[in-house]
Amino acid sequence: MSLPVFVDVQAAAERLRGHANRTPVLRSATADARAGASLFFKCENFQRTGAFKFRGAFNAIARLSPTQQRAGVVTFSSGNHAQAIALAARELGVTATIVMPSDAPAAKLAATRDYGGEIVAYDRFTEDREALTRRIARERGATLIPPYDHTDVIAGQGTAALELFEEVGALDALFVCLGGGGLLAGCALAARQMAPDCAVYGVEPEAGDDGRQSLRAGRIVTIAVPRTIADGAMTTHLGELTFPVIRERVRDVLTVADRELVQAMRFFAERMKMVVEPTGCLAAAGAFAAAPGWRGRRVGIVVSGGNVDLAAYAGWIGSG
Amino acid sequence: MSLPVFVDVQAAAERLRGHANRTPVLRSATADARAGASLFFKCENFQRTGAFKFRGAFNAIARLSPTQQRAGVVTFSSGNHAQAIALAARELGVTATIVMPSDAPAAKLAATRDYGGEIVAYDRFTEDREALTRRIARERGATLIPPYDHTDVIAGQGTAALELFEEVGALDALFVCLGGGGLLAGCALAARQMAPDCAVYGVEPEAGDDGRQSLRAGRIVTIAVPRTIADGAMTTHLGELTFPVIRERVRDVLTVADRELVQAMRFFAERMKMVVEPTGCLAAAGAFAAAPGWRGRRVGIVVSGGNVDLAAYAGWIGSG
Repeated sequence: MSLPVFVDVQAAAERLRGHANRTPVLRSATADARAGASLFFKCENFQRTGAFKFRGAFNAIARLSPTQQRAGVVTFSSGNHAQAIALAARELGVTATIVMPSDAPAAKLAATRDYGGEIVAYDRFTEDREALTRRIARERGATLIPPYDHTDVIAGQGTAALELFEEVGALDALFVCLGGGGLLAGCALAARQMAPDCAVYGVEPEAGDDGRQSLRAGRIVTIAVPRTIADGAMTTHLGELTFPVIRERVRDVLTVADRELVQAMRFFAERMKMVVEPTGCLAAAGAFAAAPGWRGRRVGIVVSGGNVDLAAYAGWIGSG
Repeated sequence: MSLPVFVDVQAAAERLRGHANRTPVLRSATADARAGASLFFKCENFQRTGAFKFRGAFNAIARLSPTQQRAGVVTFSSGNHAQAIALAARELGVTATIVMPSDAPAAKLAATRDYGGEIVAYDRFTEDREALTRRIARERGATLIPPYDHTDVIAGQGTAALELFEEVGALDALFVCLGGGGLLAGCALAARQMAPDCAVYGVEPEAGDDGRQSLRAGRIVTIAVPRTIADGAMTTHLGELTFPVIRERVRDVLTVADRELVQAMRFFAERMKMVVEPTGCLAAAGAFAAAPGWRGRRVGIVVSGGNVDLAAYAGWIGSG
């Protein structure tokens, strides 16, 4: 698979037209005053399925040949990628099989099923989900669409930043959450073309700083599964495709503590009237912490998603 | 004071340009599927100060003569109108005095003060806030901007619906929350011109159905202060200006129970990733209940605000 480039992001934007939401860019005078900068929030929590993942999933499935589409797609995910693949496949008339742990939250299983995905459950303590996924792909002739390490997935995610730059013009800095790196790599491709002087930052959980370590080491560093409330960033390593793009085009990777994510979650609820999941708060928390370095500048923040269990969410915002 | 007409709404839109947010119109495939209709949510919870009230407040203050502006404005409110007047006045370089009960939530007092308003506290058990407000107006030569019964306030609120129609075209029905009637009257004026066949509905709390009673009786009916979680709709009667507009241009007034407001609040958080205050859920709850009558049709819903105490909000969305 080839490294994605900017024209792939442009082509993805064409494919997504009429399918993905062109999500709003919101602003907050309060946030601006606190940060001392002009902040532009690209709100992917209002994307279909509640997260940016729909962009990459749709783009990847739309790019398949008719023969491949007839054979269906398969993926492994217990998170936002699962729902994104399920809905994107349904829209394109493709069958989707999602390998999910049998103890995944009932709400997530139900949502994925509601979007039309066929769920294959596995025991996460005794089974190897990637081997299981590959076996299904082989048996059914289905195409595996992994959550981030895929040219078309990366290109699709990059359309979030492309739209942001189209709407607000050049920015001095852009903050993007970092898990496996699909969104960050895609956004960095868009930034390089649309705002060449824009400093792009990845933000990952303090407990899972493999991205930061990888940038420092100049190679992909693998860590143990991190303990963090940012469940979308519990990845253990960057991808073979995302890492080179990030190394070349991202200025640095910052980390934030879970407590900062909760603060950002409360800020979003109280002042911006948005429900943002912990992973979706990474970029904002990183930007708030880095704000003194960007006084008077124009700063973009990708709010990546809003899928969160309401009871857990109520606990986070109701305390404090 | 004269009854507002559509050109007043148009003029208000001109005045608000560059000051009020042009709030996004969001959609939800899940909501559409449940309702069996195409729903368009005009999201005034993303308006400045967190509610539509900024529109009317800004329009009314902007319409004052330079002499009047120099003498300042005054209002009484413990809710969204207070913050709206404070911020709109500050933007226009006008001093604002807000008469608020001394036992108002600390967060509301602080927010109003943060926006630059001077707060005059009164004891709601022993003092008459309207008399106090009139006295301040007289002593300072300040202009009283009441929360809803004012031509320019009504015209300003109507810009919310004007923008909605501009963005999505004609609608078959439009649901708007109803307290004192400023938003409903303004939106009805916009609808009459922009979508003459659109049926406009007001939605008020079951416990405070004075609007419904007034429509039935053909005169303004006054009730006791209703007990409802929709604190923005705890009004006891419509206004001398809002009632005639509503009587002429609103098809009917529906009522919803507090439990339906909580359901809508949960729906907004879970599926649309938005924080909506109880009063802001009135229109949606009314539309959801009325949906069987609008199958396959295009329905607008004004989400009026998102200002809610986070602890109370967490309690509502975390239960159930």
